[in-house]
Amino acid sequence: MCQLLGMNCNVPTDICFSFQGFCRRGGDTDEHTDGWGIGFFEDRGCRVFLDTHPSAESPIAELVRTHPIRSMNVIAHVRKATIGGATLLHNTHPFQRELWGQHWVFAHNGDLYDFAPSLSGSFMPTGDTDSEQAFCLILDNLRLAFGHQSPPLAEVYQNIQATTQQIRKFGIFNFLLSNGQCMVAHCSTNLCYIIRQAPFDTAHLVDDDISIDFRQVTSPSDRVAVIATTPLTDNENWHQLSPDSLVLFTGGKPEITNVVA
Amino acid sequence: MCQLLGMNCNVPTDICFSFQGFCRRGGDTDEHTDGWGIGFFEDRGCRVFLDTHPSAESPIAELVRTHPIRSMNVIAHVRKATIGGATLLHNTHPFQRELWGQHWVFAHNGDLYDFAPSLSGSFMPTGDTDSEQAFCLILDNLRLAFGHQSPPLAEVYQNIQATTQQIRKFGIFNFLLSNGQCMVAHCSTNLCYIIRQAPFDTAHLVDDDISIDFRQVTSPSDRVAVIATTPLTDNENWHQLSPDSLVLFTGGKPEITNVVA
Repeated sequence: MCQLLGMNCNVPTDICFSFQGFCRRGGDTDEHTDGWGIGFFEDRGCRVFLDTHPSAESPIAELVRTHPIRSMNVIAHVRKATIGGATLLHNTHPFQRELWGQHWVFAHNGDLYDFAPSLSGSFMPTGDTDSEQAFCLILDNLRLAFGHQSPPLAEVYQNIQATTQQIRKFGIFNFLLSNGQCMVAHCSTNLCYIIRQAPFDTAHLVDDDISIDFRQVTSPSDRVAVIATTPLTDNENWHQLSPDSLVLFTGGKPEITNVVA
Repeated sequence: MCQLLGMNCNVPTDICFSFQGFCRRGGDTDEHTDGWGIGFFEDRGCRVFLDTHPSAESPIAELVRTHPIRSMNVIAHVRKATIGGATLLHNTHPFQRELWGQHWVFAHNGDLYDFAPSLSGSFMPTGDTDSEQAFCLILDNLRLAFGHQSPPLAEVYQNIQATTQQIRKFGIFNFLLSNGQCMVAHCSTNLCYIIRQAPFDTAHLVDDDISIDFRQVTSPSDRVAVIATTPLTDNENWHQLSPDSLVLFTGGKPEITNVVA
């Protein structure tokens, strides 16, 4: 299995503190050593850093940890290879595509069995994972439903909900998906989140003996949602998502939550 | 304007030596300070590093220079912003899309005036540059001609040649394009290349007082084509491409060369 980390904010924010703890799970505090990746949205642009080395010892992860990139939407993933086995770059999350002149980024935790969706060809996997196939199916259904024009966000969410219903029958399907404007999070089994907003306080990592006083690095109107497979800090109140819930985050808070059954 | 660097090889090769000289042109030996990027194909995977800071002082460029990534196809770009002005991530080359389950990467040097192609919507720009529009048009025409199945390489080349003929009327259109299997290079005004193969020798950079003895780091069967806006070394024989020539490189050598008039 793998682990997921996401961030959705109302102001560009760096993820260095959360990523510091998260990337230790790639070969240090946990066993997710089969590559890692992180995608940052900046305005209409997007950059994804990928590496097949364990994040705990990757020089690229070290760079991401130490050079703050401010972003409103971030998705990161540390991988323990299962389906679509090999630790190769083309199997490394997050995956990235363009739809409606927007970048889309996706990462998955879980295994889908006997999953071989019929894809139109508009979005095709480059690698061997069930995860990239699921991502292509989500985008394919959006394109089939709405053509070449981006619809309102609520309709995007409904369409993703229908595809999620279709895919979840094949196994565990925790995922994070963003187009730079919102973050969609689906919990099959394990996904939790925290909203950080005023009054800010101090947080301490689970995976490293590091604390941060958010009062020193925030403005009163900042709001940041951090989403992760398991809590990243041990002194804050993380909300466990219910199994099968699909949450749309915008501006650093959950906007729509439905149960996908 | 900008500068281009490409590499096409018959064996995975690192580009550290060439990139060392090239990235000094981003704010040190030359004026291309409006961001830079580099895309590496590894097997079926692809990773693109992008930065809006000048390459001569970017910590990401420093990482790329010092941590060898072995690849058969690489495209790099240092930008001096003109059309689609601002130094923003969504205007930073190289651009990346997926077609036929393959990653495609593109970078452009030149300016296209009054260029507003009619795009079907399958590939849409995320940013403001003439370059990304040209890339989308190339892929759009490939998809329209061949649908969802990848045709033989010679037919891909012919289709790209037709689109290049269409675009070149709008201005200067030096470009590099790769799908990980081949490299297509078009020279409007400035593009040159060198083939390095046995017997290997020593090379010395133009932009930095650094030499490499390729005999120490190669096997006799290795063959590497390096393509650049202007020569990167001062003691080797670079071939200047004729204006309007379109070259398909595979396995480290030019396979097809046509003049696009």
